[in-house]
Amino acid sequence: MTVTLDEIRQAAGRIHPYIHRTPVLTNESLNTKTGAQVFLKCENMQKVGAFKFRGACNAVFSLTEEEATRGVCTHSSGNHAQALALAAKMRGIPAYIVMPENAPSVKRNAVAGYGGQITFCAPTLEAREATLKQIYQRTGANVVHPYNDERVIAGQGTTTLELLEDVPDLDVILAPVGGGGLLSGTSIAATETKKGIRIIGCEPEMADDAYRSVQSGTIVPSINPKTIADGLLTSLGSLTFQIIQEHVAQIVTVSEEGILEAMKFIWERAKIIIEPSAAVAVGVLWEKKIDLTGSKVGVILSGGNVDLDKLPWT
Amino acid sequence: MTVTLDEIRQAAGRIHPYIHRTPVLTNESLNTKTGAQVFLKCENMQKVGAFKFRGACNAVFSLTEEEATRGVCTHSSGNHAQALALAAKMRGIPAYIVMPENAPSVKRNAVAGYGGQITFCAPTLEAREATLKQIYQRTGANVVHPYNDERVIAGQGTTTLELLEDVPDLDVILAPVGGGGLLSGTSIAATETKKGIRIIGCEPEMADDAYRSVQSGTIVPSINPKTIADGLLTSLGSLTFQIIQEHVAQIVTVSEEGILEAMKFIWERAKIIIEPSAAVAVGVLWEKKIDLTGSKVGVILSGGNVDLDKLPWT
Repeated sequence: MTVTLDEIRQAAGRIHPYIHRTPVLTNESLNTKTGAQVFLKCENMQKVGAFKFRGACNAVFSLTEEEATRGVCTHSSGNHAQALALAAKMRGIPAYIVMPENAPSVKRNAVAGYGGQITFCAPTLEAREATLKQIYQRTGANVVHPYNDERVIAGQGTTTLELLEDVPDLDVILAPVGGGGLLSGTSIAATETKKGIRIIGCEPEMADDAYRSVQSGTIVPSINPKTIADGLLTSLGSLTFQIIQEHVAQIVTVSEEGILEAMKFIWERAKIIIEPSAAVAVGVLWEKKIDLTGSKVGVILSGGNVDLDKLPWT
Repeated sequence: MTVTLDEIRQAAGRIHPYIHRTPVLTNESLNTKTGAQVFLKCENMQKVGAFKFRGACNAVFSLTEEEATRGVCTHSSGNHAQALALAAKMRGIPAYIVMPENAPSVKRNAVAGYGGQITFCAPTLEAREATLKQIYQRTGANVVHPYNDERVIAGQGTTTLELLEDVPDLDVILAPVGGGGLLSGTSIAATETKKGIRIIGCEPEMADDAYRSVQSGTIVPSINPKTIADGLLTSLGSLTFQIIQEHVAQIVTVSEEGILEAMKFIWERAKIIIEPSAAVAVGVLWEKKIDLTGSKVGVILSGGNVDLDKLPWT
């Protein structure tokens, strides 16, 4: 079981009417600082403020008419919940979202604002999965996992098709890795269209389960990681792990300080708002653990959802 | 004395190797909120983080070899000082910058970082002008006024040539007005290339000297204005006033609350960082004092220099 380039291309056609084609920006200060030629793919400017909308949209619009009538469901406290709710709203079908009862009100409101029907549960994985199962049994809604789902991975891969259309001669693409949906889609889309391109997964040192999984050859679970990059807390899935093993050159980890410095640099110099999880990919350039001097480097800025009343450096 | 479209076109060719061609972004939330189709010209992503670099660059590279050897000078505590210092550095000539002794260290450091030679003075207009005169008498450096200068106005006008290349069928362009350099350049570039386009100057209610100047037909000085839009505190100059009278359809003022709300909306939804002065132009759409429903509206986001450790809403 895997995802093909053809499925990613089909996803691109399917979601085209619903998504933004996000801009690719460059910044001279960043090039000077890193010694590379950097191209920022701005998924922070995607709908719901994150690449997650692509995968959710592809999953929702892949459903048959008959499947679609039953709606979609998932458990998530983050960008995937909003993304799925909006995609379902666009198709005119229900979205049942299980959220932990301690989810911030800003996230609850966003999901509710897109018409998602929220069920709260205790803030444990077990409670989330049990609650989702109940909803599935009651409604028959189609479960859309945030990353371990072929339709989602294909949707995330469309980011890279666009990036390579705009900048065909990239040497390397950097993408953050949490559950691995974005990194999986990125790696298939890139390596299947461009020989020799290197895909690097970017992960917080403090949540380095993907790095350790690739090193050990078996999925290492992410247990209570403490990192500012709160979009990258989850463990790899069976599907994403396999794809990453096959298509990703390397996982590189970034310190908390590196994430924060890279994030602030992008805000100050590139004048765009990225969330800490997106800054992890910039952080790899920042900390120079691998030599990318002189390379043409695509960086997927995965999202821009930040609480502007509580910035991490104030 | 005025500035011609031809001079703006010459400026565009002259500064082309040195400036960024800034992106034009769109945002669906903003369109929905305002009822207009909005195109954001991102001069917040220009070098030194503001359109000011265009005018400074045109002034510096307009000098003859003989003039250039004596360098350039100005008094400014803001973006113009940085812009002139960087442009001079690019030509390899000295920049003498008079700054008030109470200028924030972040601004001093930026000017010094570009190699500008700073002379501090008392924080009054008289002291600034007297100090500048001394420097001129000592060095013979070419004075580059921040806005009441034809070369500067022509440089600022290049922003609009680019905007209209990208979006030729705009109905209206909104630009903030402080001293009027940007608004002057914008209005000539737009009205001379596109019949029927309307140029609207956007000004804080709390610093509405341009509005009152146009109403009364004589330059009304800006006296100790108190607004969050600290790039728009200055009065119009003789040259900019004349151009604005001839080419600008209307000046519209925006409340402090409108500026702040528009600024935060752009940060949250468009995921880009703009300074309060740039938010004034968005604020005109926000407060709907004029009806732009259904119009194609270009907005010049003049700059993005904000102290990220002290946001205005925290």
